[in-house]
Amino acid sequence: MNKLTIIPLNKIEIKDNFWDRYIGLVKEVIIPYQWDILNDRLEGVETSHCIQNFRIAARREEGEFYGAVFQDSDLAKWIEAVAFSLATSPDPDLERQVDEVVDLIGDAQEEDGYLNTYFTIKEPENRFRNLMEGHELYCAGHFMEAAAAYYRATGKDKLVHIMRRFADLICDEFSLEKNSKGYPGHQEVEIGLYKLYEVTGETRYLEQAKMFLDRRGEKPNYFLEEKKQPGFKHLFDEFKNYDTAYAQSHLPVRRQETAEGHAVRAGYMYCAMADIGAAYDDAELLKACEVLWDNMVQKRMYITGSVGSSGILERFTTDYDLPNNSNYSETCASIALALFGRRMAQIKKEARYYDIVEKALYNTVLAGIALDGRSFFYVNPLEVWPDNCIPRTSKEHVKPVRQAWFGVACCPPNIARTLASLGEYIYLAQQDAIWINLFISSRVRTVIQGQEVELEIDTRFPYDGRIRVSVNSPVPVRGKLYIRIPEYVKEYTVHMDGRALDTGVGSDGYYRLDMEFASQTITLCFGLEPRIIRANPLVKEDIGKVAIMKGPLVFCMEEVDNGANLPAYYLDTASGMEEYYDEGILGGTSVIRCKGKKMKSEGWEAKELYTEKRPEFEEKLLTLVPYPYWGNRKTGEMLVWIREQL
Amino acid sequence: MNKLTIIPLNKIEIKDNFWDRYIGLVKEVIIPYQWDILNDRLEGVETSHCIQNFRIAARREEGEFYGAVFQDSDLAKWIEAVAFSLATSPDPDLERQVDEVVDLIGDAQEEDGYLNTYFTIKEPENRFRNLMEGHELYCAGHFMEAAAAYYRATGKDKLVHIMRRFADLICDEFSLEKNSKGYPGHQEVEIGLYKLYEVTGETRYLEQAKMFLDRRGEKPNYFLEEKKQPGFKHLFDEFKNYDTAYAQSHLPVRRQETAEGHAVRAGYMYCAMADIGAAYDDAELLKACEVLWDNMVQKRMYITGSVGSSGILERFTTDYDLPNNSNYSETCASIALALFGRRMAQIKKEARYYDIVEKALYNTVLAGIALDGRSFFYVNPLEVWPDNCIPRTSKEHVKPVRQAWFGVACCPPNIARTLASLGEYIYLAQQDAIWINLFISSRVRTVIQGQEVELEIDTRFPYDGRIRVSVNSPVPVRGKLYIRIPEYVKEYTVHMDGRALDTGVGSDGYYRLDMEFASQTITLCFGLEPRIIRANPLVKEDIGKVAIMKGPLVFCMEEVDNGANLPAYYLDTASGMEEYYDEGILGGTSVIRCKGKKMKSEGWEAKELYTEKRPEFEEKLLTLVPYPYWGNRKTGEMLVWIREQL
Repeated sequence: MNKLTIIPLNKIEIKDNFWDRYIGLVKEVIIPYQWDILNDRLEGVETSHCIQNFRIAARREEGEFYGAVFQDSDLAKWIEAVAFSLATSPDPDLERQVDEVVDLIGDAQEEDGYLNTYFTIKEPENRFRNLMEGHELYCAGHFMEAAAAYYRATGKDKLVHIMRRFADLICDEFSLEKNSKGYPGHQEVEIGLYKLYEVTGETRYLEQAKMFLDRRGEKPNYFLEEKKQPGFKHLFDEFKNYDTAYAQSHLPVRRQETAEGHAVRAGYMYCAMADIGAAYDDAELLKACEVLWDNMVQKRMYITGSVGSSGILERFTTDYDLPNNSNYSETCASIALALFGRRMAQIKKEARYYDIVEKALYNTVLAGIALDGRSFFYVNPLEVWPDNCIPRTSKEHVKPVRQAWFGVACCPPNIARTLASLGEYIYLAQQDAIWINLFISSRVRTVIQGQEVELEIDTRFPYDGRIRVSVNSPVPVRGKLYIRIPEYVKEYTVHMDGRALDTGVGSDGYYRLDMEFASQTITLCFGLEPRIIRANPLVKEDIGKVAIMKGPLVFCMEEVDNGANLPAYYLDTASGMEEYYDEGILGGTSVIRCKGKKMKSEGWEAKELYTEKRPEFEEKLLTLVPYPYWGNRKTGEMLVWIREQL
Repeated sequence: MNKLTIIPLNKIEIKDNFWDRYIGLVKEVIIPYQWDILNDRLEGVETSHCIQNFRIAARREEGEFYGAVFQDSDLAKWIEAVAFSLATSPDPDLERQVDEVVDLIGDAQEEDGYLNTYFTIKEPENRFRNLMEGHELYCAGHFMEAAAAYYRATGKDKLVHIMRRFADLICDEFSLEKNSKGYPGHQEVEIGLYKLYEVTGETRYLEQAKMFLDRRGEKPNYFLEEKKQPGFKHLFDEFKNYDTAYAQSHLPVRRQETAEGHAVRAGYMYCAMADIGAAYDDAELLKACEVLWDNMVQKRMYITGSVGSSGILERFTTDYDLPNNSNYSETCASIALALFGRRMAQIKKEARYYDIVEKALYNTVLAGIALDGRSFFYVNPLEVWPDNCIPRTSKEHVKPVRQAWFGVACCPPNIARTLASLGEYIYLAQQDAIWINLFISSRVRTVIQGQEVELEIDTRFPYDGRIRVSVNSPVPVRGKLYIRIPEYVKEYTVHMDGRALDTGVGSDGYYRLDMEFASQTITLCFGLEPRIIRANPLVKEDIGKVAIMKGPLVFCMEEVDNGANLPAYYLDTASGMEEYYDEGILGGTSVIRCKGKKMKSEGWEAKELYTEKRPEFEEKLLTLVPYPYWGNRKTGEMLVWIREQL
């Protein structure tokens, strides 16, 4: 199938007012910080033991395995993040660090290609016998992704060779002859196998990924059968009462129509379905992707681009069940959503997928990391009352403060690899065309009809709607430039070299320029006024409330700006909003102020809980800041959905 | 201390329009139904095995223990309910059933007095070695309560003797010499020991109960030490990460100022603190009761008189954290609240305690049982969206439909004993006076200054505010009659034999008549118009919402009367409310109708989740029925706190 291609990271250079602070963190803070953690060199954070596990598995040291069964994946994600970083910003010292750790990984690999320190050290006899919980295939997938990324960044193929050996073993172990029923309990290896196929051309990996997908949901359920085997023992207490929908094995993937179960598992699976569907031009599989995407983003997604609303099991629940102060909304699930959306845009060439990708990246993914890069949110609530987030209660998973590091360390390295690969989200290409999907100041070199063309985006988006795209092609060449017109842009202008163009947007949501690429400047001006958003009234939690957005950014109230008891504020939507850029807070950001009122609690005595008293209000100015920046100042309440003064 | 006394049940006869349907169920349905369950004679409900466990422990049959570690308590609560029922409604066949089962209990008792089928059958070597989870003392307490009640109802003391033997063993095992630190992981034996003291006069039981209370909270924490003993094994997975506040052992009880931990444990402990505090005239302990009561009812209680807002661990959280659609609010916790409130009223002689007792009984306790007596709620939400109550999610504990029987069967027998002992809640007495606390049509015989006096209450409360109290004393005698004026009664009149009296209410909240009891009729007329209630604005979940009450009854909207998406309704509090009695629904009840509007979801396309669309409304009449009756018709949504049309 003719899907759009991702332009390699080393062809893209980002220099953006909004994103630089985050991307800079990846190399300066997150990569070294996470390396220290993987090596247990940091005090006061949860012990990782990750590298040590590899040393023990490699027989370089004596000791016991420590950590989660999926601890290896932390190293894989770190390598992938480093690879993305090296692609745009070479660093011989860092590269040497990776080379050394790749050697270690090679040493930890068993003779037959098996690679997983937990099972190698602790339960060699139980390899692949607990697919439901074992995470061997999950870790394998992340290492395959890392191998592909590192090869693309550096041309070094040692990790690719290591992972080929493991992939070959997996293809044997899960071949039709040997185990024709098994598939992973946490999807990810399907993505990894696909990437390994991309860099090696080995179609066996592609076929294995497809088989894994198509086995899922077969009756009888593999995981339930596996549990009945003699000697089976659970790794997680909470899996004793296993729900087949948890890992999306309740139905064949082609027949799944609603987003169910653990949100990260779901998201990675949908990515693989899109990869495999496109690779085989499998209309049925791609149709399932569309149906699942639509269900997820039209009925089960927060305005911040997060998914998985249940605090228990980090899972999807049902249509429109979107509580704001007890949701899970894992950072990794939003990353998976962005990865899936980008694939759908590659396949369907429709801008609407990027409306969601952008929302997820600008809001939940960025909220996941502190402005100093040293602490992280797993859980991304839309409303926080710190006092209520008490251990061992229904809101204990909601943290009002980002955490330094977690025992289950999936989110921080996942954020790192996402930021390091941000370039891959901006552009897409095909032989005669280039697509601009995100408005991030950057320069890209790509090839159109055989000619190298350079494009440069210059903008202060999302704070400002003016976007300048400079085209520079030494040899003029005909082609097409597609520029995404976001769904939230109601009015815009387009100029080429100062000349106004028509502003008809295609049914695909892109503004298309059929042009000769030479030396031009295209200027877009998007209306980016703050917007008042309301949820579908079937979202019961949001009835009578509004949220404020500007471009893709959701705004929120924080206690530090507004005082306590934020739910007592009412926003006057009939008055205008004032927006200004404040250099002084949060490293410089847009701030929005609105008129409104607050229900007074001052007149209430502490002993009055329920009375016939009428509410009293006082006029207030409401101050809102971008959601990704919440929780970077004093600990306090936060609120996205604000009561509307009707 | 001179606390008010409870008038024995056999002196009270209830014949009440509102309550009879429930009380009738106890004898006709619940007692035989629960007996069948205890004997595993019912199909389609969870297996109890309770009687069978006793048979096995008694060596009458062979077999294995089955059920929860606290399964015995189901039988104890059943006996207590039967005892209360027999007190007002003798039944030789039923009494014979109890006598037989008491014989069985006696046979199941070990030589040294120990009584607990789980440990006798399964872990005889582990008696009293896991107080945190073992529930031996909890079951003992319930049997002591049952023994006292059965003795009072029938004069038969065999069960009292059985429980004395066990109590003596407990006093030995937990004496200063043998185990001076231990106390129960689930409070209840303190109440039981106190009742056993009441019927036997044995002060050793009183002293042991006091010791159990005063040991709680000592450092180091008993339960945490107990866990360190060799051979300790957990009975419950969720207790591995034990929080000492869970069973209120985080602080000495006298220093506890906020209601913490598991709500039923807390409530039973507060009852015991009141019992022991009064028995010893222990001002410090009674002060702690007042402080805990105030914290609980002024900051941590729902308008329906329910407590324990966390779905995880069924526990208290923090002040004003009262979510409506994910709360636990266990029926048993409201029963404990009523038991505690009655004790506080006995001690403090203040009507305000009964405002809460009445609220708990009329709303949450009754909501716990279906109108046919055959199904039950453990969890009592104030807002239900059936679609969202999905297994393995944050709302999985919320059931939109009452359940036939539970594996953990605490609530149904607890409701039964509460209904069967309702008479104990109506009146209180002391040597020269009688108190009327609840307005339930009934007749009571009591003794004032040595003379037998009869009082009769005749009313259609809570639907009607007229209450007639007829006094009949063959020998006129001077005394005092106290009638509670509920906090919600703003206007009322009092007549004696047709003559209007002043209506000054005392600072204790009672209307006091110093009178010669002879043959009089006192007529009260309470203003009981439906009221619009608002919560303290610190209850964030209720901001901008109102609840409707009439007398003690909370009203709610149900989908069957109003259609779906109840949170989209706005109540117009500026218009009046229409109230009428409808014979045709729910066996006859008051219905309230209010004007309002509904936010329309019809104009929204299924794919629109977040837009700039303005809300549209349509006028609606809102129909409300009493909260205790919810869920007795079609399964659907339910809502107590309704958005206010401001």
